[in-house]
Amino acid sequence: MKQDTRQAILDAAAPLIHSQGFHRTGLKEILDAAGVPKGSFYFYFKSKEDFGLALIDHYAEAMRALSAGVLARADLAPLARLDALFAELCGVMERRGCERGCPIGNLAQEVSDLSPAMRERLSLAMDGFSRTVRALLDEAAGRGELPTGLDPAATSAFTVDAWEGAMLRAKTDKSPEALRRFRDFVFNRLFV
Amino acid sequence: MKQDTRQAILDAAAPLIHSQGFHRTGLKEILDAAGVPKGSFYFYFKSKEDFGLALIDHYAEAMRALSAGVLARADLAPLARLDALFAELCGVMERRGCERGCPIGNLAQEVSDLSPAMRERLSLAMDGFSRTVRALLDEAAGRGELPTGLDPAATSAFTVDAWEGAMLRAKTDKSPEALRRFRDFVFNRLFV
Repeated sequence: MKQDTRQAILDAAAPLIHSQGFHRTGLKEILDAAGVPKGSFYFYFKSKEDFGLALIDHYAEAMRALSAGVLARADLAPLARLDALFAELCGVMERRGCERGCPIGNLAQEVSDLSPAMRERLSLAMDGFSRTVRALLDEAAGRGELPTGLDPAATSAFTVDAWEGAMLRAKTDKSPEALRRFRDFVFNRLFV
Repeated sequence: MKQDTRQAILDAAAPLIHSQGFHRTGLKEILDAAGVPKGSFYFYFKSKEDFGLALIDHYAEAMRALSAGVLARADLAPLARLDALFAELCGVMERRGCERGCPIGNLAQEVSDLSPAMRERLSLAMDGFSRTVRALLDEAAGRGELPTGLDPAATSAFTVDAWEGAMLRAKTDKSPEALRRFRDFVFNRLFV
């Protein structure tokens, strides 16, 4: 029961904060959206920062859930699976009219200089995405499908950074062009 | 005199908003920092959004001023000049302990879904940086120093997007590693 209410708060908060930002979204608005009595927040979270840490885990988990289907596609070679993952993420952003952007990237921009604990958790979340990419690059390298001299660790980190930048540009331009450009450069230039 | 006070408000606001964000920085804090009487803000700006537009121009102008010295270095080939520009920007970020990040990227993340007018101005500012990069890539292409098949327009936009992502990652990791990685991939992989 306690876990259900805690999860309901996170489920209600996730789209609000994704749209409006962490500081702009008040506890009252979150609890109203979750249908949870005001005042019960501190039963579930020690502070708004503690809640922020749980929210980062929530976004990272949603990302893993979104990726799982594509990553399990054994019919695709590793680089094709990675491209399918980015195609899926592009589709999400396009269907949203290029609003919101990346929830992890947004929070990183907003709180990295304000909360050391959240900054560290966000850094770990980005690193988690880099490790997902890296596993596919390692697999591609093992099959001789990655150019020689392309270090999988650095390449996966660069790819994730460039993706974050492309998401920001798509949000700013309100156009998916930057996402298509990202896929073109990464898959037709960097990985060939 | 009117222009001086207007400029003093922008000069005082720029580092505050760069550190704290647009919505978190109140008008009173800005006017106090500028030493301008409260209430005079609306003499210089029609609204906080109108002020936001002027602030974006202020950041873009600061970027142009920072870049001008490097861009004028006729002793360097165009790609070396571009690398020197990114080296300069890396140095600024490192000396700041990887705090703040890119002022244009920060605002783009924060307000792109909230203010159509600011979003459009931020998109133009990013495009302005892309055009600076593109001029150097065009010059390099004219000298046969850019790989064939690398379109200068798309390449400059991808480079700027990847840079924004690297700045965000450096801010999140509190490490310049992502900025070094960006330079390595762009100059030792993409442009060769």
